[in-house]
Amino acid sequence: MITKNQIKYIRGLALKKNRVKEQCFVVEGEKSVAELLRSSFQIIDLFATKQWIAENNYDNANEVSVTELARISNLKSANNVLAVVKFNEEIKEKISGVTLVLDDINDPGNLGTIIRVCDWFGVEQIVCSKNTVDFYNPKVVQSTMGSLFRVSVLYTDLNKYLAKTTTPIYGAFMDGENIKSSNTNENIHLVMGNEANGISKEVEKYISKKVAIKNIGGNTESLNVAIATAILLYEFCD
Amino acid sequence: MITKNQIKYIRGLALKKNRVKEQCFVVEGEKSVAELLRSSFQIIDLFATKQWIAENNYDNANEVSVTELARISNLKSANNVLAVVKFNEEIKEKISGVTLVLDDINDPGNLGTIIRVCDWFGVEQIVCSKNTVDFYNPKVVQSTMGSLFRVSVLYTDLNKYLAKTTTPIYGAFMDGENIKSSNTNENIHLVMGNEANGISKEVEKYISKKVAIKNIGGNTESLNVAIATAILLYEFCD
Repeated sequence: MITKNQIKYIRGLALKKNRVKEQCFVVEGEKSVAELLRSSFQIIDLFATKQWIAENNYDNANEVSVTELARISNLKSANNVLAVVKFNEEIKEKISGVTLVLDDINDPGNLGTIIRVCDWFGVEQIVCSKNTVDFYNPKVVQSTMGSLFRVSVLYTDLNKYLAKTTTPIYGAFMDGENIKSSNTNENIHLVMGNEANGISKEVEKYISKKVAIKNIGGNTESLNVAIATAILLYEFCD
Repeated sequence: MITKNQIKYIRGLALKKNRVKEQCFVVEGEKSVAELLRSSFQIIDLFATKQWIAENNYDNANEVSVTELARISNLKSANNVLAVVKFNEEIKEKISGVTLVLDDINDPGNLGTIIRVCDWFGVEQIVCSKNTVDFYNPKVVQSTMGSLFRVSVLYTDLNKYLAKTTTPIYGAFMDGENIKSSNTNENIHLVMGNEANGISKEVEKYISKKVAIKNIGGNTESLNVAIATAILLYEFCD
């Protein structure tokens, strides 16, 4: 069963200010929770139906009814399990290959897709500007389909971070160099900019190489940032 | 001004059955309508504010108030202009490069993104199975940001279409050949399958080459179909 206070607390985690205050976020659905259980993330509380508990070896579950679960769920149709999870922001010290840097990505769907793409291409770390959309946002958590437990995401001051970076820093620009078949084996940082404004002037000064995806049709002005990230990672990851 | 019957008619076009019956769909917003005016699509009716009419040389606009426009708009905040447009399904006979084939794509956002990506990479024709989401769906129209007026989209029986196709037919499969740097100059058809089920058995028999994007991380099961389409077109289009 679940108390009124627990319901209030969990529903409150839909808001960023409460997540930041509590340093906790919500993970829902069987697939996402299965990935969570395989990760190093710390589970604070887990609410599940009798059926889920019977099927999974998890000792500390609170058994709840489907109706109770619906009261704490963010999903249109509540699933069998919901977990409250501790934030986990780790800096990976030794990274090989590409480290992705996001300069003010706004859209939760884009961030979720980018995390999934990083998981596919083996990118271990994403470094985000402080204004990039919050990765513990329920829409981001849901759209990554479990990939967020495998890709480390860190929020920091990009100015300070990039000033200390020793690998080449590539940035995606409309007027950059066409990267087709430019296979690089270097360890690099790759910076992607905001959906509307691209990479900020402040971050641009750290870019050692401007890269672009050739606009073959020549009519449309831009590619979606998640699409562009996927193509660049496809090119740079081996 | 706008009559009650016109309001009813336009709002009705939010439903597929009415669009199919009338062979018409709705285009909203200044950017999309600007692209529409540059296209060969036939405009049946155009409703616009005084301001839009003053700024654009379009003779047959119906002047409406912002309030009237809000009554016929599908958007959260109605824009300055809305057009009712005739369906335009053309088969391009001579196509060079890649022709994209969609086998039951379900999600309007995915189709919209795919059309935008085709516009970027100069793909002129998309051939869709009859069960692929309707391209005149308001969400698709909006998400293509004008690209739908430049990329020709055709709905047909894929079985019949592919049986008559003379170019190689590539298909995206999880167990296909890694296409990295496999630059092809051939004219090809590229088939992408349904979000959950991939390419259907019926269509698979026409595939001459199975292709895949290497799963470097090895943990996540799949890439979003719009992302996968973008990467494959990036590789195959020059």
